[in-house]
Amino acid sequence: MDSYQPTERSKVKRGNKRAAYDHQTVHAIFDALPLCHVGYVVDGQPFVTPTLQWRRGTRLYWHGSSASRMIRTVSGGMSVCVTVSALDGYVMARSPFHHSINYRSAMAFGTAELIDDADAKDEALKHMFEHLFPGRWDDVRGNTEKELKATSVISMNIDEASAKIRTGPPVDDDEDYDDVKCWAGVLPVEQIPGAPIDDGRLLDGVGFPDYLKMFLPK
Amino acid sequence: MDSYQPTERSKVKRGNKRAAYDHQTVHAIFDALPLCHVGYVVDGQPFVTPTLQWRRGTRLYWHGSSASRMIRTVSGGMSVCVTVSALDGYVMARSPFHHSINYRSAMAFGTAELIDDADAKDEALKHMFEHLFPGRWDDVRGNTEKELKATSVISMNIDEASAKIRTGPPVDDDEDYDDVKCWAGVLPVEQIPGAPIDDGRLLDGVGFPDYLKMFLPK
Repeated sequence: MDSYQPTERSKVKRGNKRAAYDHQTVHAIFDALPLCHVGYVVDGQPFVTPTLQWRRGTRLYWHGSSASRMIRTVSGGMSVCVTVSALDGYVMARSPFHHSINYRSAMAFGTAELIDDADAKDEALKHMFEHLFPGRWDDVRGNTEKELKATSVISMNIDEASAKIRTGPPVDDDEDYDDVKCWAGVLPVEQIPGAPIDDGRLLDGVGFPDYLKMFLPK
Repeated sequence: MDSYQPTERSKVKRGNKRAAYDHQTVHAIFDALPLCHVGYVVDGQPFVTPTLQWRRGTRLYWHGSSASRMIRTVSGGMSVCVTVSALDGYVMARSPFHHSINYRSAMAFGTAELIDDADAKDEALKHMFEHLFPGRWDDVRGNTEKELKATSVISMNIDEASAKIRTGPPVDDDEDYDDVKCWAGVLPVEQIPGAPIDDGRLLDGVGFPDYLKMFLPK
């Protein structure tokens, strides 16, 4: 099984029973959670910027306006940490100490690089669409030269990465199961699609497309 | 209206029509989104660690195991950026360029400090419970001395902060409304409570508590 090699930087220090480094686990979490948090440093000051990421193989991509702080900083090649996480539930134990959360998270380290070439940018954005909304690219109009100029795409090889997952019920101290009379269990948190809202300016004959049906409420 | 004073560090560079600095907006986003991403720097390397945060006034708090990398790093006082964000929907436009997301995010800067004193730690954890699960603290057993020793609580005054929010439909180029025949609108993403799962070891007579009823599915 392909795996990222943990180092001092990426090895999960705490709760390492919950850690994984294999490509399959790490990539599945990045793919399931498009909203990422990009950490980078400017003059010793950390910044954490939320943005959408997408993945191809062992590379992550994200984009932004050419005016953003992150994009202006990255141009020289920038050490970044990209983290995604989801809260899947509150874990309610019999003591404060054993309260926890169920979650999935993944953290990737690498050097971010700007994609400068207009064609390469266009291709990367097409991949974003294929990744997030397969079928959408062919339905919309293509990028103009001016739009590509105003968009910055960043790419990063995942040099190291780790995943961390917690699932299941609380784990209480033995004596608390008998002694503490309170409700204990998991309060799940779910992320689900809401009903689509069209923008009221659809042309005649335009309906909701089949290729977006995974975004419909179940 | 109380407001954080934006500086070069915290001023929103891009999309500043969507930015806010007033306490009310910034605090409401932190309060609604307990899962945060803490950015910090170790030897020039950025780390972004997900954890739960809670707020009192203009201070943020989070906690962790004394064994974690973040906690070991923070002890000397550490410059951090704490970001929360939620994806509220995919904004599907008629061109790739105008695709966007609806979101709420807030970013806070400050210096993180360890809370060392056991009583202060206990009080902070009680506030976490009151913040996240009002009523829960009195239902569980209290912290032991050993547990308090194994828990680290971090506190940070919010020196600067900004919020950024996008809502509403796509905004397309004028000519695309007439020329591009594709579905356009918002695909909402909602975070909702799932049905609680008790841990199967509840004592006789213990039911789901009233004080957690905001975690029940609607």
